[in-house]
Amino acid sequence: MEYGADRVSSINLSQVRKMFEQASPTAINLALGEPDFNTPSHIIEAYKEALDNNYTHYSQNKGEPILRESISKKLKKDNDISVTSDDIIVTVGASEALYSSIQALINPGDDVLIPDPGFLSYKECVTLAGANSVPVKTSYENEFKCKVEDMEAAMTDNTTAMIINSPCNPTGAVMEKEDIKAISDYATDNDIIIFSDEIYEKIIYGKKHHSFQKYCDNTVTINGFSKAYAMTGLRLGYCTSNSAIMDEILKVHQYNIACVDTACQIAANVALNSSQKCVEDMTSQFKQRRDLVVESLNDMGLECHIPDGAFYVFFKCDNPQEFVQKSVKEDVILVPGGAFGSQGEKFIRLSYAESYENLEVAMQRLEKIV
Amino acid sequence: MEYGADRVSSINLSQVRKMFEQASPTAINLALGEPDFNTPSHIIEAYKEALDNNYTHYSQNKGEPILRESISKKLKKDNDISVTSDDIIVTVGASEALYSSIQALINPGDDVLIPDPGFLSYKECVTLAGANSVPVKTSYENEFKCKVEDMEAAMTDNTTAMIINSPCNPTGAVMEKEDIKAISDYATDNDIIIFSDEIYEKIIYGKKHHSFQKYCDNTVTINGFSKAYAMTGLRLGYCTSNSAIMDEILKVHQYNIACVDTACQIAANVALNSSQKCVEDMTSQFKQRRDLVVESLNDMGLECHIPDGAFYVFFKCDNPQEFVQKSVKEDVILVPGGAFGSQGEKFIRLSYAESYENLEVAMQRLEKIV
Repeated sequence: MEYGADRVSSINLSQVRKMFEQASPTAINLALGEPDFNTPSHIIEAYKEALDNNYTHYSQNKGEPILRESISKKLKKDNDISVTSDDIIVTVGASEALYSSIQALINPGDDVLIPDPGFLSYKECVTLAGANSVPVKTSYENEFKCKVEDMEAAMTDNTTAMIINSPCNPTGAVMEKEDIKAISDYATDNDIIIFSDEIYEKIIYGKKHHSFQKYCDNTVTINGFSKAYAMTGLRLGYCTSNSAIMDEILKVHQYNIACVDTACQIAANVALNSSQKCVEDMTSQFKQRRDLVVESLNDMGLECHIPDGAFYVFFKCDNPQEFVQKSVKEDVILVPGGAFGSQGEKFIRLSYAESYENLEVAMQRLEKIV
Repeated sequence: MEYGADRVSSINLSQVRKMFEQASPTAINLALGEPDFNTPSHIIEAYKEALDNNYTHYSQNKGEPILRESISKKLKKDNDISVTSDDIIVTVGASEALYSSIQALINPGDDVLIPDPGFLSYKECVTLAGANSVPVKTSYENEFKCKVEDMEAAMTDNTTAMIINSPCNPTGAVMEKEDIKAISDYATDNDIIIFSDEIYEKIIYGKKHHSFQKYCDNTVTINGFSKAYAMTGLRLGYCTSNSAIMDEILKVHQYNIACVDTACQIAANVALNSSQKCVEDMTSQFKQRRDLVVESLNDMGLECHIPDGAFYVFFKCDNPQEFVQKSVKEDVILVPGGAFGSQGEKFIRLSYAESYENLEVAMQRLEKIV
């Protein structure tokens, strides 16, 4: 018997994961998209207290009211987005927010613009909705920042949505305010939904993050606690939009996962309402690591921009496959840029979500193969 | 601008939830599908220890190997199902297991047999895959136990799968071994996939639970920790099947939720490997409550079978809407059986996942309206 619905027939399992499997246990893994930091202790303590207080029963499908209220305030304060807690859904990481919102809003046959290079889940989530992804090409010359001209160039008659990710995985690019406004206006004028993945919002160096939803009502803002609070494995994200859109997303979310771990939601509420110094400290360490990596790569003659956000350096390389194979032999794991789209084919992604010490060792190892 | 993909256009938000919203805070809620018990303390302690030990990073997409290994042993011991840990995926409750497996295996236009009366997510999950649900009618006369004849009567040319739920929500029916074998053979002969939702497996009174997967290789077994270990809000489930099927489910699961809360997985592993006395104790209390409720209802002249499993009594009623409205006024919340399919239209579902004391009070209140 043959199995598998049509919607999964062309789905690939993650290329990034495949890289790990070739590595020895002593390798320094610069392929991972997660902070090496442990979750700050006050969040862990709040989580444990929630468990002691029996927050082990179902929460509302949309999420615990107290957490949604806090997210609503955060969105106003940080992003100048005005939504009530009713228009927020707490999700299993940003992943489920992206997946459920695309399922809720995108029809088979629709074209969805996705960034190239871009996070590989975008293409697969679009495919799982039976829709087509159309790459929006960003270039090294423009520091991989997306412009409205790039969007317009990719537009098709069937385009109903675009996915944008600033700060960007894999390039670290942070979009400019004027580009965000221009794309928002374009989306509004053309009835295009924007899925704005802002999961790296807090990991940004000396620039201000701007949100699409401030300028465009057709925006689904996707965010979460994984990267900012080093909570990747605790799976806490959220999305928000206008009420009409949120009603549709709830239909998928409710039957997909019912609700998110209740105790974890209480911990996330504490994360939002406590001092944000832990976030600043981690970001400051990421910045030191970025500077180390960029300088070391440039010293080796490997060209890259200084990324303004996220924790990736995307450096030029003529033969990424060969380079990555050689680096695995030297116990450093990297990801060939082609995994993130055709525009990444002459690049390699290096995640500096590793300790400064390990990054120093990794740079010494890479020097041997340049 | 109009929103909403076609797949969500006919999705209803849960009727059961709507019942709650009419109730006063002092009402006794017999509408809920979750144990009133708190999660056993040794599981909570294991969860807290996992948090202290920094199990806060991503797990493998399929789930923590140690937990999948324990689930594999559990399946062999309890269910006589032989699968390796590679063919197990840990999910966000049984909900996500059901949702992701249907998305992975069912095409638009397929017919999927669902139990009537049955858990209301089945229909909606089938709809979200663009498929049609075909009710398999079970009757009061046969204690709502599903027979192969009931399946055959519902079969269509486009039927590719059936969903079965024993012990059953909302009826409490537990299927007989010979029926499970007969349906398994039928599914094998006709290349039909069985989605077997066994979430109430442990809440069973004096009968033995049997699993389809033992008899039919095309079975996706869905189970979890929510009901047996009173862990509903902690969202821990799993599914298993043959390797070819699991490869397809992983494609959806990976991009849907990435992975489940890692610390919670460590706690679940402890739940499986510790004494099962907590499960027996809770089940024994459920049995006492069942006996109280069935006896009280029958004394009031409300007819029902003695359910062999789950924590619901499905009693006869000529005008369920009126009865439920009256009971809300008396501060008892119930669900009209019609929410679970046309075969439930002359019934009411009462959940006895409430304390014995509250059930006694609820029964006194119901007496006033009979």
